[in-house]
Amino acid sequence: MNTFGRNLRLTTFGESHGKAMGGILDGMPGGIKIDMDIILRETARRRPGQNHLVTARNEKDIPELLSGLTDDMITLGTPIGFIVRNTDQRSGDYGEMAKLYRPNHADFTYDMRYGLHEARGGGRASARETLNWVIGGAIARQLPCMKDISINAKIISVGGVEGTTEEMSAVVEEAMKRGDSVGGIVECVIDGIPAGIGNPVFGKLHARLAQAMMSINAAKGFEYGDGFSAASMYGTQQADIFTSKDGRIYTKTNHSGGIQGGISNGMPIIFRVAFKPTPTLLRDIETTDKDGNSRILKGKGRHDPCVALRAVPVVEAMSALVIADELISQNIVSEI
Amino acid sequence: MNTFGRNLRLTTFGESHGKAMGGILDGMPGGIKIDMDIILRETARRRPGQNHLVTARNEKDIPELLSGLTDDMITLGTPIGFIVRNTDQRSGDYGEMAKLYRPNHADFTYDMRYGLHEARGGGRASARETLNWVIGGAIARQLPCMKDISINAKIISVGGVEGTTEEMSAVVEEAMKRGDSVGGIVECVIDGIPAGIGNPVFGKLHARLAQAMMSINAAKGFEYGDGFSAASMYGTQQADIFTSKDGRIYTKTNHSGGIQGGISNGMPIIFRVAFKPTPTLLRDIETTDKDGNSRILKGKGRHDPCVALRAVPVVEAMSALVIADELISQNIVSEI
Amino acid sequence: MNTFGRNLRLTTFGESHGKAMGGILDGMPGGIKIDMDIILRETARRRPGQNHLVTARNEKDIPELLSGLTDDMITLGTPIGFIVRNTDQRSGDYGEMAKLYRPNHADFTYDMRYGLHEARGGGRASARETLNWVIGGAIARQLPCMKDISINAKIISVGGVEGTTEEMSAVVEEAMKRGDSVGGIVECVIDGIPAGIGNPVFGKLHARLAQAMMSINAAKGFEYGDGFSAASMYGTQQADIFTSKDGRIYTKTNHSGGIQGGISNGMPIIFRVAFKPTPTLLRDIETTDKDGNSRILKGKGRHDPCVALRAVPVVEAMSALVIADELISQNIVSEI
Amino acid sequence: MNTFGRNLRLTTFGESHGKAMGGILDGMPGGIKIDMDIILRETARRRPGQNHLVTARNEKDIPELLSGLTDDMITLGTPIGFIVRNTDQRSGDYGEMAKLYRPNHADFTYDMRYGLHEARGGGRASARETLNWVIGGAIARQLPCMKDISINAKIISVGGVEGTTEEMSAVVEEAMKRGDSVGGIVECVIDGIPAGIGNPVFGKLHARLAQAMMSINAAKGFEYGDGFSAASMYGTQQADIFTSKDGRIYTKTNHSGGIQGGISNGMPIIFRVAFKPTPTLLRDIETTDKDGNSRILKGKGRHDPCVALRAVPVVEAMSALVIADELISQNIVSEI
Repeated sequence: MNTFGRNLRLTTFGESHGKAMGGILDGMPGGIKIDMDIILRETARRRPGQNHLVTARNEKDIPELLSGLTDDMITLGTPIGFIVRNTDQRSGDYGEMAKLYRPNHADFTYDMRYGLHEARGGGRASARETLNWVIGGAIARQLPCMKDISINAKIISVGGVEGTTEEMSAVVEEAMKRGDSVGGIVECVIDGIPAGIGNPVFGKLHARLAQAMMSINAAKGFEYGDGFSAASMYGTQQADIFTSKDGRIYTKTNHSGGIQGGISNGMPIIFRVAFKPTPTLLRDIETTDKDGNSRILKGKGRHDPCVALRAVPVVEAMSALVIADELISQNIVSEI
Repeated sequence: MNTFGRNLRLTTFGESHGKAMGGILDGMPGGIKIDMDIILRETARRRPGQNHLVTARNEKDIPELLSGLTDDMITLGTPIGFIVRNTDQRSGDYGEMAKLYRPNHADFTYDMRYGLHEARGGGRASARETLNWVIGGAIARQLPCMKDISINAKIISVGGVEGTTEEMSAVVEEAMKRGDSVGGIVECVIDGIPAGIGNPVFGKLHARLAQAMMSINAAKGFEYGDGFSAASMYGTQQADIFTSKDGRIYTKTNHSGGIQGGISNGMPIIFRVAFKPTPTLLRDIETTDKDGNSRILKGKGRHDPCVALRAVPVVEAMSALVIADELISQNIVSEI
Repeated sequence: MNTFGRNLRLTTFGESHGKAMGGILDGMPGGIKIDMDIILRETARRRPGQNHLVTARNEKDIPELLSGLTDDMITLGTPIGFIVRNTDQRSGDYGEMAKLYRPNHADFTYDMRYGLHEARGGGRASARETLNWVIGGAIARQLPCMKDISINAKIISVGGVEGTTEEMSAVVEEAMKRGDSVGGIVECVIDGIPAGIGNPVFGKLHARLAQAMMSINAAKGFEYGDGFSAASMYGTQQADIFTSKDGRIYTKTNHSGGIQGGISNGMPIIFRVAFKPTPTLLRDIETTDKDGNSRILKGKGRHDPCVALRAVPVVEAMSALVIADELISQNIVSEI
Repeated sequence: MNTFGRNLRLTTFGESHGKAMGGILDGMPGGIKIDMDIILRETARRRPGQNHLVTARNEKDIPELLSGLTDDMITLGTPIGFIVRNTDQRSGDYGEMAKLYRPNHADFTYDMRYGLHEARGGGRASARETLNWVIGGAIARQLPCMKDISINAKIISVGGVEGTTEEMSAVVEEAMKRGDSVGGIVECVIDGIPAGIGNPVFGKLHARLAQAMMSINAAKGFEYGDGFSAASMYGTQQADIFTSKDGRIYTKTNHSGGIQGGISNGMPIIFRVAFKPTPTLLRDIETTDKDGNSRILKGKGRHDPCVALRAVPVVEAMSALVIADELISQNIVSEI
């Protein structure tokens, strides 16, 4: 339940307000140079407090790599253990909340599942867990076979507004002013994957990507290629006609989103993930306590007006873990 | 890759035009009465050739249960092996196709993956594999703990038309006349699940459902609760306010679709799966052969104008396998 | 629990007196010619009733391969499903036993575990299950990478007598005459494995072999290389000194039994498995019924005087599955 | 490969001379009070340098628990991450060795497997890894269901001498004086396990114990109950006759070692593990370098004259992990 992957496996731990986050990345081949700057760049991208649109919680999030590497940062083929200390523990912020069920949070369901209201800011349900994933993904991205594969996610819609960064930022700012939050859609394009990566039946590449993306906090939907719009189309509209150039077979269009029958076809893999608005609001909201008594939850604390913004590097990291796992499973490690 | 589930595991085999389909359902507790009629009812629902809207391939699809049961059909707690003979092998139909890459099929990607063009009608990529899933699901549904859980899927949209069965049927018939196919959306409601079922982090209930649904042939998208529309909404619109009645806490609305933080909250679980139009068309279509030469693929053979129609019992079966696995994993076997 | 292996996985089903035994071998690469005669030869080796020293139960044990192969018996890379019908069901033989706990059998422990006294001759606890393993192993042995690897098991001791086949046979015959049974030791030598196969930590090659061998019915002990006698030795006696010839490094002695640190060193892998005497005796024996009442269990039914004899092909089959899994996991499929 | 267990899983990392050892114990239920003193007691037991019979390497080995616990040391049901800093890194000791293949060490096989001669004192092959296992086991032992289960391992033989602690110590001291090492046998008794724990087929309790024990450094053999001596016995000698007292059914003898058909029968579980002499000697020894040139390896560095001595708490820890995993898998968490 805390392990992701098959031949490249990330196992994680850490409560958001406990001592540390951390994980073990098992399955990285030996002999690979790891660049710490790439890890730091990725963790910085997901860090809260970077600008006024994301929460003010300011943690350093500097991972310490404890094993699996020589002093020169060459992988040994052994598991890479890492930790990130939680330096900014403000559990007091959550005092009042600890007694109430926050709407759309996991407080109520965790309580039903474990019979225990974890007081440390939501524990494993917190988006802080995704820091572990970003570290794992930033290491996985450095496999030689991943060098020519680009993974680029971006926000394409906020609160229903598709447009320029300025327009989407305006929607977020406006929501923030009202103490409200807003949803968004992240699109990810993975380019450079050769044809033939993935598996049929229960190991379909898009099913693995779906599971990975739906694991991200606040994700409500996943689609690839034409996605939901394919359900409104006819077969003749949707056919990706094969053609060839210089001996390479490819499709003229990419309705399929780069995957057919669960296996990559050499075209760019394209998928979208829908994120709901952050459930934490800076407004008072009605709820109940554990005994079912009606209560008012005061809006306060740190707050992301649009989690979709912070999900962008997480979508990329989880993509990297899935793709790297598939490549390793098919014994592709060297540069493609 | 051919195994689904954790503590209730379905492992399957069978090429669509080979000798038999089959599987092993491992993890069913002992002492449970299995009703063969329920299995036959479910396999009948997914069988092609039931009416003029689905393909004419007429197979009996009568599973033979080979183990795991007493003569009185009581489970022994041992794995249940089953097979279904393929009685209607018409591999000749696929002679021409075997040399060409059918658009949107897995021919090309399988060839890239395995270096082998499986001549038996697509082999494991065929939707016939879902027969195994329906059998597995039909057994899983008979767990006592599943008795009060209803799993109901239905088509809610065909070719973009949401409406009555008559209206949607008209869209399919019209597509069929033109030798075309059409996409559709299946919605599934799982009711009766108690709060507290599922897991955090990488074992989220909706992520497992997503993986299960995206494993179904032709699935292009998955969403639960408000799904993609949540990305256009504000937090204040989307909050599921907790309230209580007679000591039972529940939410006034169900934007969350019955799952929060990966764990059920006691409300109905609602999700939707988008299916693309069948790639097999009864029309000539442009493509290439394995050497990249431009060719025309003749439209012929058996053909489902709308795979979404046949996906309905498969969506239910995969839901049953996921839910039963979760309940068994949480040691819930007896009636809830 | 009914699946063995990691990248080459055998999942099995079948009660000894149910309709059929069977399994699914998942992970065999495509393009490999399978010789049915090798499978039949191996199943014949383990079949009871071959000579007067093993039980008279005479079943044909002809497996039917249902998937994963072309008509020309070339693997497709898809799972290979197989079944073997149980033609010789004599459950009546076990009528009396069904009410009593047979000493050293699994009757009592199954009852404690599952609360159910499986009446079909012991169900999954029966050695008949090993037929599935022999079929799986006989297929695995046909991987090109296995061609130059010899796996040879033989009885080296019966009832404490180490000697020629005649001497050991005499011990078995003498036990049989008395309605008694006798234990034995099987030694297996795997030759031709290149250095570098296996894993450290929890995936050690000898630990996997140990688990595989201890899964065989009646196995009581496993040792490799010097085994238990190493515990009586000094380091200076036990050191396998490295030397080289024509550039190939090897050890002068093989105290290590071909494995160091869980990884093969290129020397023959040698291990031994101790089997206890068959618990079924042709003599009356004291026991209790399910209520704890003292009873006499009449000696009758079919009976193997020395299960170690029949374990020989099973030891080889399980070795083949372990080695093939390791080679596939290290992406070694072609001839070495 | 670095994960052990099914529903209680220990994943570990750490090279013996790297920055830290550590692991994640996933699957511990919530609400359990953890006593740090028990963890420290167990790590102290396995620590080198306790007396003159074990190596002088003196590390503190104080684990830091980073997650999964409240401040009051109550488990949260979330994964427990832990690390132990390596404070005594003397990699210089291994300078000469790094160029030579030490006999009976994993140097050569790791080189063949990974193409990389890990310079940090053997890396993952080092017995220091078992520190992680002892920590995991010390936590697992604190499950309420484990409270009345005693797990006691002890040395029963050193260099072939079975006797009192004094006699066995004399053998070790004598070997140490000569710069030699000596093997030994550890026997473990697990008492208090109820009948019905374990699984048939591939999940047999003794097969899991065998795999666990054979994972320990220097283990060469495993046997349970009568073990190898059962191979010299007749069925009539070996039968564990059932009897009953006050309604509880048990066996008069315990040849079976507490397990029948892979499932516990309520009698004490008894097994033995054979350990070879430490391969590191304080004497010069012949070997080759990586190019196959004949060389002399100087005896120096730290050195355990009898690893079996230090294996005792490791045998207990691995037993605790196996038993706790089985109990959790059968949903037994509370006191038995």
